[in-house]
Amino acid sequence: MNSPTLAEVRAWDKHDPLAPFRAAFALPEGVIYLDGNSLGPLPHATQARLAGVIAQEWGTGLIRGWNDAGWMAAPARTGDKIARLLGAAPGEVIVADSTTVNLFKLVAAARALHPERSTLLTEAGNFPTDRHIVDGLAGLLPKLRVKTAASDQMASAMDGDTAAVVLCHVHYRSGARYDMAAMNAAAARCGTTIVWDLSHSAGAVPLSLAADGAEMAVGCGYKFLNGGPGAPACLYVTAALQDHVRSPIQGWIGHASPFGFSDKYEPAPGISRFLSGTPGILGLAALEAGVDLFLAAPPAAIWAKAARLFDLFRCLAATSCPALELLTPTDPSHRGSHIAFRCPQAASVMQALIARGVIGDFRPPDVLRFGLTPLYTRYEDVWNAVEAVEQVRKEGLLF
Amino acid sequence: MNSPTLAEVRAWDKHDPLAPFRAAFALPEGVIYLDGNSLGPLPHATQARLAGVIAQEWGTGLIRGWNDAGWMAAPARTGDKIARLLGAAPGEVIVADSTTVNLFKLVAAARALHPERSTLLTEAGNFPTDRHIVDGLAGLLPKLRVKTAASDQMASAMDGDTAAVVLCHVHYRSGARYDMAAMNAAAARCGTTIVWDLSHSAGAVPLSLAADGAEMAVGCGYKFLNGGPGAPACLYVTAALQDHVRSPIQGWIGHASPFGFSDKYEPAPGISRFLSGTPGILGLAALEAGVDLFLAAPPAAIWAKAARLFDLFRCLAATSCPALELLTPTDPSHRGSHIAFRCPQAASVMQALIARGVIGDFRPPDVLRFGLTPLYTRYEDVWNAVEAVEQVRKEGLLF
Repeated sequence: MNSPTLAEVRAWDKHDPLAPFRAAFALPEGVIYLDGNSLGPLPHATQARLAGVIAQEWGTGLIRGWNDAGWMAAPARTGDKIARLLGAAPGEVIVADSTTVNLFKLVAAARALHPERSTLLTEAGNFPTDRHIVDGLAGLLPKLRVKTAASDQMASAMDGDTAAVVLCHVHYRSGARYDMAAMNAAAARCGTTIVWDLSHSAGAVPLSLAADGAEMAVGCGYKFLNGGPGAPACLYVTAALQDHVRSPIQGWIGHASPFGFSDKYEPAPGISRFLSGTPGILGLAALEAGVDLFLAAPPAAIWAKAARLFDLFRCLAATSCPALELLTPTDPSHRGSHIAFRCPQAASVMQALIARGVIGDFRPPDVLRFGLTPLYTRYEDVWNAVEAVEQVRKEGLLF
Repeated sequence: MNSPTLAEVRAWDKHDPLAPFRAAFALPEGVIYLDGNSLGPLPHATQARLAGVIAQEWGTGLIRGWNDAGWMAAPARTGDKIARLLGAAPGEVIVADSTTVNLFKLVAAARALHPERSTLLTEAGNFPTDRHIVDGLAGLLPKLRVKTAASDQMASAMDGDTAAVVLCHVHYRSGARYDMAAMNAAAARCGTTIVWDLSHSAGAVPLSLAADGAEMAVGCGYKFLNGGPGAPACLYVTAALQDHVRSPIQGWIGHASPFGFSDKYEPAPGISRFLSGTPGILGLAALEAGVDLFLAAPPAAIWAKAARLFDLFRCLAATSCPALELLTPTDPSHRGSHIAFRCPQAASVMQALIARGVIGDFRPPDVLRFGLTPLYTRYEDVWNAVEAVEQVRKEGLLF
């Protein structure tokens, strides 16, 4: 991309097929929000939906909501909707707990397929929860150790002793993306299972879990899916594997017959066996509304705009702030939907940007991270954001 | 108690010091709600609070809500409030996950204190999740087995091989309550720890966890605390034990420095180490509002009214429906805050009651269960509920 003019950028917005979606979100005045990869904004429909859940379903329906308002079915119903975004089939995804808890459940379940193997493998320096979860499981179970590798050594680090692998599909800082099909093929050759952490992928990039041979994954509801602060997470297990694995956290909601109140645990058939406790309905309702809005947008337009938002940011920043070192791969198939730069004063730069109403993230020690979310981000927002970065630079204070 | 007249019952309501609290709840017309032990009703203040969290904190504040709106502090802040209801100190209770997930974390943590012991002990026939959790942990860890005992054999079933005990303080069907101090003393003599499940105790009965020597407990937010459908749960660890135990589910929010993004897991000091993933803010906000309302009521009035509601139900039912077999102990110190009857046609009776607007619970195979919740239940509601039971009986269809 050559640097466009502001007039050209405005013309892109004018002809953007996703432009009408911006009005579906409650975005505050005076803010350019490039942090939807940390917490997506509030959809107006979510506000209305939650008001109904609170006043009618809970207030009037009371306990009857579990059946009459479809609360019991919400984890599977919302999971089926998310499955469309993940390239999975109905019945392969369920909404439950947090990404952390779901990672624990799936790594334990994957490992139980290979009790004779002694290694859990994950990437060094990716999102720390992925590492913490395998460390915690290794601390709990005897004869299990954790091995880490850099991303480009990951395939070769798998071997016949690898019980399970945890990989963050898109790196939370750099935005670099694994080739999912290639990694799953490498795992299959070693007879092991990758548990994919899709926190920075779900709603951010096209996903084809089934076609790419993914067996297990978790995803985050509050980032690109706009499910609200601390929204419940989702969990995927390929249909063929479901009846051969079980959750270590056995609760009544994952039972084949929750209202039988039997002492004997019998896991529910299919993906529902990965439910544990009573699902949080407020969080689920907000997530479902966010996902409904996402599903209303044409996927091809989302991915095309995401790529163009990235190229625009990169191209404008290269011209006005060449001192910023781009961390994110430029090929759209090798990255997620955020752009990250290294800058020694990143913490102070982000503070200055937020003071100017441009909200992104600082990630230690030296990374500026900006989420690119096609549903509500205009090309002109990127123009103005980069201009704000340039202002901060010109003030000479920071870099 | 001798059977009072309706006029007397109405006079009790008139002079009830808790009567003003009923107006704080959004109770639907035409319903007598005796199921607040399954799902508490909606407080008006919760509706207003959630509207603010959604529109202002999330909608306008966006990612800034984690600091500016106190979201990061919400699990500990709400935990400290719940601690007052549990007889625990600030810093001993935190809100996180579900009761199921919290049970898993605490049983694993308690067991890790005694890796050489091989038995997890729980009660047969109590709430099945308690049993499922220990079975799941025993399935995950080698050389660990599950032993069950009846409630009156529980103290003698503990021995030097007992790694941890899980006990539901108030039985979910019968309402029978353990003597917590006596059981903790028995556990201490065997050098083991009881993880108390307070699902039917928190907000239902006076609790003195610290004074009674309790070391670990979980509690439910959506029953007597009126925290909304699937509200997050709470978790208690006595201060002296906190730095000697850790959660098996290690996530970034339980890290000593969540925003340090370090590969090395260092558990947060104190109770916060039992957090795992990002907390669900909508559920937390609703729970905090419910707890705030509960804390506004004088505890002595709550427990006195609970006892009188029970006695009234029992006395009226004994007269009008003598075929109902009372399951719940009559001594208030030996039970929770619901009343349960055995009746062969319990399922059909409850259906008929719900059709008449009297909402309680059926618990298989043959139990009618009615929650007695002093904040919003009138004595006259009990009068009318028992009259509805009598009508169902008189129709001759059911019992």
